Amino acid sequence: MSHRESPLKSSDFISDIVIGMSDGLTVPFALAAGLSSAVQSNGIIITAGIAEIIAGSIAMGLGGYLAGRTELDHYQSEMKREYQETIDFPDTEKKEVKEIFQEMGLSESVQNNAVEELCKDTDKWVKFMMKYELGLEEPDKNKARKSAFNIGMSYIVGGAIPMLAYVFTSAPQTGFKLSFIVTVICLLVFGYFKSKLTGQRPLIGALKVMAIGVIAAMSAYLLVKLFN
Amino acid sequence: MSHRESPLKSSDFISDIVIGMSDGLTVPFALAAGLSSAVQSNGIIITAGIAEIIAGSIAMGLGGYLAGRTELDHYQSEMKREYQETIDFPDTEKKEVKEIFQEMGLSESVQNNAVEELCKDTDKWVKFMMKYELGLEEPDKNKARKSAFNIGMSYIVGGAIPMLAYVFTSAPQTGFKLSFIVTVICLLVFGYFKSKLTGQRPLIGALKVMAIGVIAAMSAYLLVKLFN
Repeated sequence: MSHRESPLKSSDFISDIVIGMSDGLTVPFALAAGLSSAVQSNGIIITAGIAEIIAGSIAMGLGGYLAGRTELDHYQSEMKREYQETIDFPDTEKKEVKEIFQEMGLSESVQNNAVEELCKDTDKWVKFMMKYELGLEEPDKNKARKSAFNIGMSYIVGGAIPMLAYVFTSAPQTGFKLSFIVTVICLLVFGYFKSKLTGQRPLIGALKVMAIGVIAAMSAYLLVKLFN
Repeated sequence: MSHRESPLKSSDFISDIVIGMSDGLTVPFALAAGLSSAVQSNGIIITAGIAEIIAGSIAMGLGGYLAGRTELDHYQSEMKREYQETIDFPDTEKKEVKEIFQEMGLSESVQNNAVEELCKDTDKWVKFMMKYELGLEEPDKNKARKSAFNIGMSYIVGGAIPMLAYVFTSAPQTGFKLSFIVTVICLLVFGYFKSKLTGQRPLIGALKVMAIGVIAAMSAYLLVKLFN
């Protein structure tokens, strides 16, 4: 039924926000935690946090842009190839259509009728091969640009939260404590809504998202201490 | 034809390495670039780099783990729901099967035959709905654990490259220059093979991957300078 389609697929917007916010809340938080075990001034942590947020948001945003462009290019080049193949190897292509119907569990005679009907119209035929052989749906043309912006912005918003704690405190250790409390709360809230939107159990999801952030931050804190 | 199936889907291993390595080569590189415009000692850059690599590899690795687990849970809960629906609403579910065949462009009579055949066997019926209505394939049960390890390790390997330049030089400015040269070469090589493996044009792909890294690093460098 249509209302049960995976929400992860139903909204690129939400999925982009989730991608950017997940890493944005976690990585700058853990970086700052790691640094707070080694440096004496909040200034360095804030500088590193700014550098990380710029680096992460651009890398992830542009990464999202490229992924979107690649998906579109891939779809178009595969479609061109399928059209060509219906001309060059019509029998092989028809056999492939038949195999798909066979794999669905239909009988020989229904398979043959279905193939015959479908392959009368080249557009239908190619559309069928794209969707059922290659599993490709035509992507939204503006997806790449929108993705880049949404992922990048959510990374910046997510990353600003743990860093602000170091702006409003005067020493790394107090900054770390405040950052920890604030970010754990945000991770729980974010994890709760993320899980709700993607059809998972919200409380379990909230705890999982929080656990990733805390494990990353504590590992960075302890390992940096060890290296110094 | 089977040899044309999207290579992006055909290997989770390669896709995990690409995910980890892309961010691993880019974010620590850009973070270090940003810091080298603001701090006087390589020690701080290396400390921040270590913190970032720990933070990024754990966040991405555990993120990959959760994504894999979620995919498996999602598949299993959807399958349970589909089985229940063939019992509770068999007519609605049959209509949905028919609509899928209709959307393929088959005639009324072939649609009806196909529906009848498929829905005789509940396992076939549910498998059909999972794949063609919901677009879900049964995921590999060990995928989550393997993903976590492969993504995390590639992030560490990727991140170590730009950071080593600061270990082998004595000042941030020379470290940055060496890091820039070494990382640009690695980004080009990585982008070349990534594009080859994912069926893109290798030279264009190499330039795109390199451009993301350079834009992220230069932005971090210039913006951090501005903030200080």
